[in-house]
Amino acid sequence: MNKIKVGVIGATGMVGQNYLRLLADHPWFEVTYVAASPRSAGRTYEEAVAGRWLMTDPLPEQYKDLIVGDAGDIDSAKGKCTVIFSAVSLDKEQVKELELAYAAAGFAVVSNNSAHRHTENVPMLIPEVNHAHVDIIPAQREFYGWDTGLLAVKPNCSLQSYVTPIHALREKGYQVDRMIITTLQAISGAGYPGVPSYDMLDNIVPYIGGEEEKSEEEPLKIFGTIEDGKFVYDNSIQISAHCNRVPVIDGHTACVSLGFKGEKPELDEILEIWENFKSLPQELDLPSAPRQPIIVRYEADRPQPRRDRDMDKAMAVSVGRLRECKVFDYRFVGLSHNTVRGAAGGAILMAELLVAKGYIK
Amino acid sequence: MNKIKVGVIGATGMVGQNYLRLLADHPWFEVTYVAASPRSAGRTYEEAVAGRWLMTDPLPEQYKDLIVGDAGDIDSAKGKCTVIFSAVSLDKEQVKELELAYAAAGFAVVSNNSAHRHTENVPMLIPEVNHAHVDIIPAQREFYGWDTGLLAVKPNCSLQSYVTPIHALREKGYQVDRMIITTLQAISGAGYPGVPSYDMLDNIVPYIGGEEEKSEEEPLKIFGTIEDGKFVYDNSIQISAHCNRVPVIDGHTACVSLGFKGEKPELDEILEIWENFKSLPQELDLPSAPRQPIIVRYEADRPQPRRDRDMDKAMAVSVGRLRECKVFDYRFVGLSHNTVRGAAGGAILMAELLVAKGYIK
Amino acid sequence: MNKIKVGVIGATGMVGQNYLRLLADHPWFEVTYVAASPRSAGRTYEEAVAGRWLMTDPLPEQYKDLIVGDAGDIDSAKGKCTVIFSAVSLDKEQVKELELAYAAAGFAVVSNNSAHRHTENVPMLIPEVNHAHVDIIPAQREFYGWDTGLLAVKPNCSLQSYVTPIHALREKGYQVDRMIITTLQAISGAGYPGVPSYDMLDNIVPYIGGEEEKSEEEPLKIFGTIEDGKFVYDNSIQISAHCNRVPVIDGHTACVSLGFKGEKPELDEILEIWENFKSLPQELDLPSAPRQPIIVRYEADRPQPRRDRDMDKAMAVSVGRLRECKVFDYRFVGLSHNTVRGAAGGAILMAELLVAKGYIK
Amino acid sequence: MNKIKVGVIGATGMVGQNYLRLLADHPWFEVTYVAASPRSAGRTYEEAVAGRWLMTDPLPEQYKDLIVGDAGDIDSAKGKCTVIFSAVSLDKEQVKELELAYAAAGFAVVSNNSAHRHTENVPMLIPEVNHAHVDIIPAQREFYGWDTGLLAVKPNCSLQSYVTPIHALREKGYQVDRMIITTLQAISGAGYPGVPSYDMLDNIVPYIGGEEEKSEEEPLKIFGTIEDGKFVYDNSIQISAHCNRVPVIDGHTACVSLGFKGEKPELDEILEIWENFKSLPQELDLPSAPRQPIIVRYEADRPQPRRDRDMDKAMAVSVGRLRECKVFDYRFVGLSHNTVRGAAGGAILMAELLVAKGYIK
Repeated sequence: MNKIKVGVIGATGMVGQNYLRLLADHPWFEVTYVAASPRSAGRTYEEAVAGRWLMTDPLPEQYKDLIVGDAGDIDSAKGKCTVIFSAVSLDKEQVKELELAYAAAGFAVVSNNSAHRHTENVPMLIPEVNHAHVDIIPAQREFYGWDTGLLAVKPNCSLQSYVTPIHALREKGYQVDRMIITTLQAISGAGYPGVPSYDMLDNIVPYIGGEEEKSEEEPLKIFGTIEDGKFVYDNSIQISAHCNRVPVIDGHTACVSLGFKGEKPELDEILEIWENFKSLPQELDLPSAPRQPIIVRYEADRPQPRRDRDMDKAMAVSVGRLRECKVFDYRFVGLSHNTVRGAAGGAILMAELLVAKGYIK
Repeated sequence: MNKIKVGVIGATGMVGQNYLRLLADHPWFEVTYVAASPRSAGRTYEEAVAGRWLMTDPLPEQYKDLIVGDAGDIDSAKGKCTVIFSAVSLDKEQVKELELAYAAAGFAVVSNNSAHRHTENVPMLIPEVNHAHVDIIPAQREFYGWDTGLLAVKPNCSLQSYVTPIHALREKGYQVDRMIITTLQAISGAGYPGVPSYDMLDNIVPYIGGEEEKSEEEPLKIFGTIEDGKFVYDNSIQISAHCNRVPVIDGHTACVSLGFKGEKPELDEILEIWENFKSLPQELDLPSAPRQPIIVRYEADRPQPRRDRDMDKAMAVSVGRLRECKVFDYRFVGLSHNTVRGAAGGAILMAELLVAKGYIK
Repeated sequence: MNKIKVGVIGATGMVGQNYLRLLADHPWFEVTYVAASPRSAGRTYEEAVAGRWLMTDPLPEQYKDLIVGDAGDIDSAKGKCTVIFSAVSLDKEQVKELELAYAAAGFAVVSNNSAHRHTENVPMLIPEVNHAHVDIIPAQREFYGWDTGLLAVKPNCSLQSYVTPIHALREKGYQVDRMIITTLQAISGAGYPGVPSYDMLDNIVPYIGGEEEKSEEEPLKIFGTIEDGKFVYDNSIQISAHCNRVPVIDGHTACVSLGFKGEKPELDEILEIWENFKSLPQELDLPSAPRQPIIVRYEADRPQPRRDRDMDKAMAVSVGRLRECKVFDYRFVGLSHNTVRGAAGGAILMAELLVAKGYIK
Repeated sequence: MNKIKVGVIGATGMVGQNYLRLLADHPWFEVTYVAASPRSAGRTYEEAVAGRWLMTDPLPEQYKDLIVGDAGDIDSAKGKCTVIFSAVSLDKEQVKELELAYAAAGFAVVSNNSAHRHTENVPMLIPEVNHAHVDIIPAQREFYGWDTGLLAVKPNCSLQSYVTPIHALREKGYQVDRMIITTLQAISGAGYPGVPSYDMLDNIVPYIGGEEEKSEEEPLKIFGTIEDGKFVYDNSIQISAHCNRVPVIDGHTACVSLGFKGEKPELDEILEIWENFKSLPQELDLPSAPRQPIIVRYEADRPQPRRDRDMDKAMAVSVGRLRECKVFDYRFVGLSHNTVRGAAGGAILMAELLVAKGYIK
């Protein structure tokens, strides 16, 4: 099988590097193009990231000699790839335009950026949760007049720890209608250089700009439906999020209290639902799909970020401490790897889904 | 004025050391007795803590030559002091008996231990909140047949960050009836050696044994009333706590969502109530009382443990990020110093209150 | 090929767990026996480590149902395995006796413990450095009257970062005769619970009991020779070590100043020697041997523990910052993974060497 | 006594903030002027540091309404103060010019910047070590044609932990002629935002740009002499430094091996020399002078940064672990607070010395 040629724009930043790391041995995709800011353009990728390759694995050989393109120059990508993974870091309006322009030029754009998350005909995907949302693509193409182009985005890293477990319960007919969530988020979520060490030694920072709004609003679209080629949000859930930065390298933890409207499941039933949860990515055996999307921990003090973030290629969500809540119905702790499941890995899984569904060829 | 002679039992552990550090220059109290386990008894205090003095200030000269008594031998304290600060670390039943025995022997016992927190005629005090609870002492003395003896205890360190702010609102007539709280607690709360560094580097632990129950139940007694010489809990509030251990030396942070029954105050009014809150310890100008019990921070990212824990002798509670909650009414972040306000400092303030009210002479 | 049956004694501690983790998919060895203290004996391995499995990978399925033996009872190992990996944690004399007793019973004992490191006919091996020392085994067997039994030990984890680079220079004829070394050692070297977090947040501890002596004395045996069936130490090198504990999970860093007697190599030559260094484990293609034992980093600020410790299965030594020394001849920074290269991984490589040389069958 | 009016230029950065914090209650000095970059000029100091006041103590009231001047505009300081504490952060040549211009304008300039450290007639002072170097001021004034102006600078923070202990030995006639030093330096030395947390969690960085050269060269001037109005360096000592960044907030630790030429003291004598060391700042009872400049720790594992950095107003050097060296004569560990003793506090002590010696009036 010929691999599908993919490009990474914003390839020199931390998310871009994670894309390259995760795509290095991908069975379906082959990175044939990288682009970044004009400052890096024209240099080899090895030169462009000299002294700022942040991954613990060494820079894979295959990328060293790729010539970095200018991410703003769409023509330079033409003919080199059919998929664009976007990790660009520009202001919101610039990203919006740029990603639309790539799609208009025929590329399948899969983005980690927040700019288009609330665009009405752009799916925001957690493949295990709302894979059906990819079926907006025909309407999207029609609306914009695109042929092969498409645009799909990934939600914020902060919510991956609890949206899948909540979805598993919804799918069984249990209506979660309120959630209060406190996240303890890893520093890699802020990129590099990111959070100063002066703020993270013997300290936590109880604030991450924009993060609480994303954590509260994005799930409503993910849980939403498509009507007339547009997303309709599910406003039956109220979510309140407290987001904290803590001295952890990778892995976002969430302490979740949740309540149900109508019938609620028993504790044991919840555990069983989570243990047995599978979705389309597992059925399709997508390369980046975890075999078990939700891993239940039964120890009193798990999940913990350093010990559980890497489970199943760092794509599984670990949950634990399920117990009754004194105010709502239940409480639990969820954990997921923010730069893999919550960023580049999640986006690659989305692209795999788009391939499997025939939208990327 | 002659200082009141006080003893510290459990004097060699971390809480005991904090008592000694904070009492070193106290205007009312003078440490004339220290006791610990039989293993330490008979040695000078300097010998007993050689290699395990954990405070950053050096061991005060005045304690070096005190001969350590056996905390289990009440006779050895007699004649040496009238107040006993208890920081003993034994099993719950042993502590219960021991503290009662000290009180029966005529000592005013002020304890940091959890054993008697729910004893029906023992006050559990945050002096700014429920100072009126000390007036159970006459009934306590009558019940046990004590003359000068008394027993008063301090609540858990985890709840100091939010109980005072909530109290300030209750005092103005606003009925908080539900709270969901997530704490990010410092390692010093676990004593020494306490939490292994292997669990606290690049990690958090989403569990602290017994801490959630304490955080949920103790406020109900603190907010309660005295009837017939016993405490009646205020069950009108429902509290759910998620307690986490994080890599911070000192200072417990709490992310709080709260709801009101009946009328609720405006945001501005809450800030004004907190800014202006004073209580009896401030009116009496007790030596360990912070001038302003609640300090409001207006920066987006405060309070933070390393930056705010030491405010006003580490006895003030810092609050910030007051904002609306998407599920309840409001949200805020509270912070207090767990080993000072939440342990030894809080207990010393209690003892000062007991002196001011005439129960310790 | 039938795999060689191996046992791990001290299997429940951190080093023992590392052995099991690294042996889980070993092409030559199969763990068929585990033993620990009498407290664990009789339980399944899964029960014995419940709540204290410290590895980030989950407990491999194959170990869960192994019944834990009593490490002190040699008979219980008989017939179950031919190699014993020792990670026991007892007092020195007990370990000495126990390891000799296993060897006397016919087992090939490969130990991580320090007890026999200076026993005159026991080889202390870094396979890339002194593989020739295994040839003391016939003399050892003759001396003790052992048939199939043997005893070989691993040196301390602190010296792995610099002994191999120094050896590579010695091998080319350059006589290093003085070294002053400061190590910055990871907390995993202290086992679990090990170093309290109270000592490791916002702090370093400039002392590790016994570590400086080991770092100074063990290289002299490793660089020594065999005469009359005994090791003669190489006393031509003087080593001074300063050992510090720092808040790093895994990976010991060493800052090394070194001087030569007689001719000294140029900077470029040293780099070339290191880049090209290979030894017997590489020639024999032993399963745990790194392809390149010494990896040279050319960035100004490398090696760094989190970024470089895992290179080549965590078995390679990373070196960098080679430059002239103002007092001796040169300076460099060395780094190696203390629980893999410096403990269980190094011991497994030793066992592979003993197999390849025919001493284990 | 009327206080001497002082200004702080570079007042909004971390070092500038430390100056202000330490000068808030100074008995001799009163801050009457602050200046920073043109961007901050014209605003109140409170506005200028809003959201970036990094000290744990709150911003002292007295500074809030000071109008920030433009540090590049010397005229704006005129008439407002007679001493300028320089914490400017510009390129080296700009700093050189600016500091000379302030001195030419009549200000006594006391600088923390490295630009003039090797200017031949500018003293680089550790007041306990080379207080006699202030007597170059008359020659300096004559050379530049300054009347009341003067320029004195502070050495780098990395060397404060060992230069005073070595000086104490030199003063007794013992000639240290070689030192190999490894420093473990705190992150506050890099200012704010400084070192990314991504580099400092579960990691150390074995490199700090320019730091090793400073650590090796600056002591030679400090130990030097004045001849013909210029400093002559003491080249009889060879120093080699390995500088590392470690996850510690404040406090630089140094592991030191040292050798003597000629007679060497006994271990006990060294300890006695250190214990009894006093110098001119102590004799003059300067306000910022520690009572005991060198504090000897006898515990096996001290000094440690978090526990010892704050000794005696954070102005004392703590030493410990004195023992023989296997290669040189002795080894020890030294520690000092980098932002107090090693920066603002050291500079204030210099200014006090200049007052006491009559050079600042």
